[in-house]
Amino acid sequence: MSTRKLVSDIGEIRLIDRIKKQITRAYKGAKGTLRPVVGIGDDAAVVRPEAGKLLVASTDMLVEGIHFNIGTFTPYEIGLKAMAVNLSDIAAMGAAPRYGLVTLGLPVNIPVETVDNLIKGTLDLSRKFNVFVIGGDIVSSPNALVVSITVWGSVEKKKIIRRSGAKAGDLIMVTGTMGDSAAGLSILGENSTRRPSSWERKLVSRHLRPYPRVRESGVLAKSGFVSSMIDSSDGLMKSIYHLCRQSNVGAKVYTERIPLSASLERFLEKKKEKPSYMALCGGEEYELVFTVSQKSEKAVKKMLSQKKCVGVSTIGEIVGKKKGVNFFEKGKRLRPFPLAGFEHFRSL
Amino acid sequence: MSTRKLVSDIGEIRLIDRIKKQITRAYKGAKGTLRPVVGIGDDAAVVRPEAGKLLVASTDMLVEGIHFNIGTFTPYEIGLKAMAVNLSDIAAMGAAPRYGLVTLGLPVNIPVETVDNLIKGTLDLSRKFNVFVIGGDIVSSPNALVVSITVWGSVEKKKIIRRSGAKAGDLIMVTGTMGDSAAGLSILGENSTRRPSSWERKLVSRHLRPYPRVRESGVLAKSGFVSSMIDSSDGLMKSIYHLCRQSNVGAKVYTERIPLSASLERFLEKKKEKPSYMALCGGEEYELVFTVSQKSEKAVKKMLSQKKCVGVSTIGEIVGKKKGVNFFEKGKRLRPFPLAGFEHFRSL
Repeated sequence: MSTRKLVSDIGEIRLIDRIKKQITRAYKGAKGTLRPVVGIGDDAAVVRPEAGKLLVASTDMLVEGIHFNIGTFTPYEIGLKAMAVNLSDIAAMGAAPRYGLVTLGLPVNIPVETVDNLIKGTLDLSRKFNVFVIGGDIVSSPNALVVSITVWGSVEKKKIIRRSGAKAGDLIMVTGTMGDSAAGLSILGENSTRRPSSWERKLVSRHLRPYPRVRESGVLAKSGFVSSMIDSSDGLMKSIYHLCRQSNVGAKVYTERIPLSASLERFLEKKKEKPSYMALCGGEEYELVFTVSQKSEKAVKKMLSQKKCVGVSTIGEIVGKKKGVNFFEKGKRLRPFPLAGFEHFRSL
Repeated sequence: MSTRKLVSDIGEIRLIDRIKKQITRAYKGAKGTLRPVVGIGDDAAVVRPEAGKLLVASTDMLVEGIHFNIGTFTPYEIGLKAMAVNLSDIAAMGAAPRYGLVTLGLPVNIPVETVDNLIKGTLDLSRKFNVFVIGGDIVSSPNALVVSITVWGSVEKKKIIRRSGAKAGDLIMVTGTMGDSAAGLSILGENSTRRPSSWERKLVSRHLRPYPRVRESGVLAKSGFVSSMIDSSDGLMKSIYHLCRQSNVGAKVYTERIPLSASLERFLEKKKEKPSYMALCGGEEYELVFTVSQKSEKAVKKMLSQKKCVGVSTIGEIVGKKKGVNFFEKGKRLRPFPLAGFEHFRSL
C-alpha cells in the first residue's frame, strides 16, 4: 500500500480548506434559491428560511465502536449513513430537509483519504435530496471516530405529522420492507470467507447504505391523509409502541402482513427462523410507519405509486387504549417480546 | 462516597425522560413567543422562524481529553462551555441566539449525576440569553465524553456582520480583556496544592466558564457601525489574521493597547513574562474582535456603555492589504509569532 497522508500531516486549517473545496464542487450548478447566504468560512452559516413555513430540526451522532466499525463500513458509508439517519427523522415529521451541519471528531492517525470519502458519502446523499451542507466543526478525538450531523428542514404548519395524531379505527401502514437491515448486520457478523450471494449483498447494503424515505414523506405530507408518523429506526415494534403511547391509543398488528423482501425470506429460510422477530425488532431501519383513516388507504397508495415511491403495506389497525398494543400471528396473540431494538447503555 | 447511579443502571429511555423533565422545569414560565411548536419527544423538533429574518447556525463539539479533562472542569462547566462557544459564534455574526440541540456521547460508566450537572450548565447559560434547548441525541461513546451542540439564531439581513467587511482606515476594537483564559489554563496546569489566590481564581474561571458576548453583539449589530466581526476563540492574533484575509486588507495592531485584566497583570509579573504572547496567542477566549470607521468609535463606545456592556478597547487599525498584518510593541514591529492559537491534529 502506498504511503497515505494522515490528518496530522496536513493539520486542521488545510483539512477544512480541503472539505470546503469538496463542498463547493459538490454544489456547483445547484439551484440558487436555497443556497446559503453565508456558507463555510465565517463564525456561523446563514440561510434564508422559507416564508410562512416552520423549521424542523434533527441531530444524530454516530460513534465508532458503537454505531459502526471501520472495516465493516467504508468511510463513504459512514458519511452516507450519518446523513441518512437525520434525513429520515426530518421525513418522519412530513418535512422537507434543507440544510446540514457536519461535525467530525477525528483520531489524529486517520488518513486524509478517509475524511474525503466520508464527506463524499454525506454530500452524495445530501445532493440527492437538495440538502445543502453549510458548515460544521472539525476536532480531534482521542480514540473513536465521531460523526455528528444536524439537519433542518421546513414544513407548512398544517402539514406537520406528529407521533401523536393516531385515532382508533386508523390503519397502520409502512413503507418498504422490514427486517432487512438486521439480517444484513447478522450476515456481516458471520465473518464468512466465501463470497456473499446476491441476496446476501442486498441485505448487507440495506444495513450499510440506508435510504431515507424523503420522497415518500413529501407525498404523504401533501396528501393530508396521514394522522401520525414515526420512522422505524428503533425497530418496527418499538416504533409502534412510541406512536401508540404518544397518541394515547392501542394497536393490533398482524405480523403475517409485515412486508418482507425476497432476500430476507431466503435468509430466514436458510436460518430456519420465524420471520416475526427480525421484522418486528430489527432496528437501524429507516422506513416510515404511519396511520391513515380506512377510507383514505386506497388514495394514499395511489398517490405514492403515481409518484414512483416505494411500495407501502397495511399491517394493522389502531384500537382504543384499553385494548393495548398487540401483535398477532395467524390469529394468535404473540406473547410480548422484550422491547428489543437498540437501547444505548443497556445490555439487553 | 455514596453509591452513585450510572447511566448504564437506568438506560437510555429513562435518561432521556430525566433530561426532558429537567428541560421542561428549566423553561417553566419562559416567554411564550419563542417556545418550540414541537419539543423533545418526536422524531424532530419544530420551531417558528421569525418573519423576515435570516437563520444563523453554528455547531461545536467538545471532546474529553482534547477540549477538557474531567477533574479540571466540573460537569456543570463542561455543559456551560459547550453552549458558550456556540453562543459566541452566533454573537460574532451580529445575530441573536434562539434554539439549541444538545448531543451527548456518554461512556456507560458515567454517573447519572454527571449528566444532570452537565445539562444544568448548558441550560443555565441558555436561559440567561433566552435560548431554548429543543432536542438532541444521547448515545454511548466507548471512552471519551463528547458534547456536540448546535445553536441557531436569527438576524435581519441588513444587520449580519461578516468577517469580510473591514476597510482600510477602520479601527480594530475588542471587548473585555485578552489572555485571561490562557493564563487560567496555565494555572490549572501547575497542579499546585496551595489554595489559589483570588486573582488566580478569576483567571481560572475565565477559562472554565467563558461568558459569550451576546449582549454586546446585539448592541453592535443594532448600531449599524460595525464593518466586520469575529470572535477571539482561536486567540486574538489568529482572529485578526482571519478577519484581514477575508476582508482582503492588512492591519496594524499596537500590543500595548491590548486590554489586560488586573489579574493577568499580576500573573505576568509573577511569571516575569512579557504580556504580548499570552494576550495575542491565547485561545479559548470568547471576546468579540470587530472593526468600525474612525468617526463612529465614540458612538459605539457610548452605546455599549449605556447598555451596561463590558468595556471595549481600540487596539489598532486596518490598512491596505499590501502593508500586511503587523503587530507593534512600543513602535517596534514584532517579528511574526508562529500562528499559535490551537490547531487540531498538529503539535505546534
